Amino acid sequence: MTDAHPYRRIVDDIRRAIEEGELRPGDRVPSIPELGRTYNVAKTTAERVHAALRAEGLVVSRKGAGVYVRTFQTIVRSSPNRLARSRWGAGNAIQDADTAPRPRTVDVQVGEIPAPRWLAEPLGVEVGDLIVYRSRRFVVDDRSVQLATSYVTVEVAADVPEIKHTDTGPGGMYARMAERGHEPTHFVERVRSRMPLAEEIATLELPPGTPVMEITRRAITSDDRCVEVNRMIVDATVYELDYHFNA
Amino acid sequence: MTDAHPYRRIVDDIRRAIEEGELRPGDRVPSIPELGRTYNVAKTTAERVHAALRAEGLVVSRKGAGVYVRTFQTIVRSSPNRLARSRWGAGNAIQDADTAPRPRTVDVQVGEIPAPRWLAEPLGVEVGDLIVYRSRRFVVDDRSVQLATSYVTVEVAADVPEIKHTDTGPGGMYARMAERGHEPTHFVERVRSRMPLAEEIATLELPPGTPVMEITRRAITSDDRCVEVNRMIVDATVYELDYHFNA
Repeated sequence: MTDAHPYRRIVDDIRRAIEEGELRPGDRVPSIPELGRTYNVAKTTAERVHAALRAEGLVVSRKGAGVYVRTFQTIVRSSPNRLARSRWGAGNAIQDADTAPRPRTVDVQVGEIPAPRWLAEPLGVEVGDLIVYRSRRFVVDDRSVQLATSYVTVEVAADVPEIKHTDTGPGGMYARMAERGHEPTHFVERVRSRMPLAEEIATLELPPGTPVMEITRRAITSDDRCVEVNRMIVDATVYELDYHFNA
Repeated sequence: MTDAHPYRRIVDDIRRAIEEGELRPGDRVPSIPELGRTYNVAKTTAERVHAALRAEGLVVSRKGAGVYVRTFQTIVRSSPNRLARSRWGAGNAIQDADTAPRPRTVDVQVGEIPAPRWLAEPLGVEVGDLIVYRSRRFVVDDRSVQLATSYVTVEVAADVPEIKHTDTGPGGMYARMAERGHEPTHFVERVRSRMPLAEEIATLELPPGTPVMEITRRAITSDDRCVEVNRMIVDATVYELDYHFNA
């Protein structure tokens, strides 16, 4: 049904060259005129090739100097290791379990919002009841790579006032929750992929055509209470998610 | 940096209406002229709204009849439950653990290819060594929702000739592998999201701007051999991935 536009064939060619090491990190990718000559395509088609390669995170543009194979490292999130109690219970940050580069946390914001349905149901409150959120952005160098927002009930927030602090202390929020009778013993992460919302494009500074992964994590206690919902929006060109489990 | 195009605000509006139930499954979405009047935007902008909503899987077009909120059900893959030995070891299909609708398997193809680096390394062969693949497509109604390709060494394929059959029998390939000394006891799934390749667009009949999730699973034995790599490409508007794990 859907016929692929010719620019896609060229994108596939260049991707293959990158994957097989013919083009290495930092190498210059053929320019618009070079692509035009090599593949006998119009300028607009060659421009779409560059845009698509950027959207896949394979290349970056340097102003006035052309397009280069990206040297930025992928961040691999390895679960359940990163969320093991032995980690945050010992005062370590969850993010430290991920592969380098380690993002910085910026723009911590806290406040209350009326719960929409997707949060009211897991948190066990009515739609429209106030809940507490804590949002932050993760940045590598100058690049925003993730938006994360935690949601808890006002009751949990009252027991764990650190949720409203910029720094939640050693081991972070889960360590504080464990100290006050809200220890998460089980997690469920739901992963979706989609094109970004307008505000996500702006905040993550995503090039056109870059998808995001939306990870919605529920933190659950041994008595089966969901004590936190954390929604993470990650730049899909930056993150890979590993999940280890037994048969 | 990146400014959102005005069509994105309209997309966000309509998505919210769908999420909050103002627009329900099967309801008609405002037409191009209606969007033009309501938001005072050009026809091309209104067309981009419909295209973006289709790409997110929120709406479907009915020829000559307009655009409607989708009624298609999301498929939730719940791990590790779906890959538990108790499931395939008892002769049940992995796919039966996912939420409805249950896809049909079509176009089973088997053959040999020289191993590229990403398969040679986990399978423990040299780049260029022949390995055996088994690819298939998953279809719901008339819609292709997933491409899956398993890769094994020629040694494993010799022990498990069912890999080359259209039907691998009760419990599928993992059950057969377990019977011949290649039982997977541990899995690692790596999840990425990206825009689709040209051939994926064609095979999955993806509308423009629809991302895919790429899931690469390694099946590992108790003596730490990777006995299979399975790469799944799923339509991101159809699948959600759940991962359950302990702290």
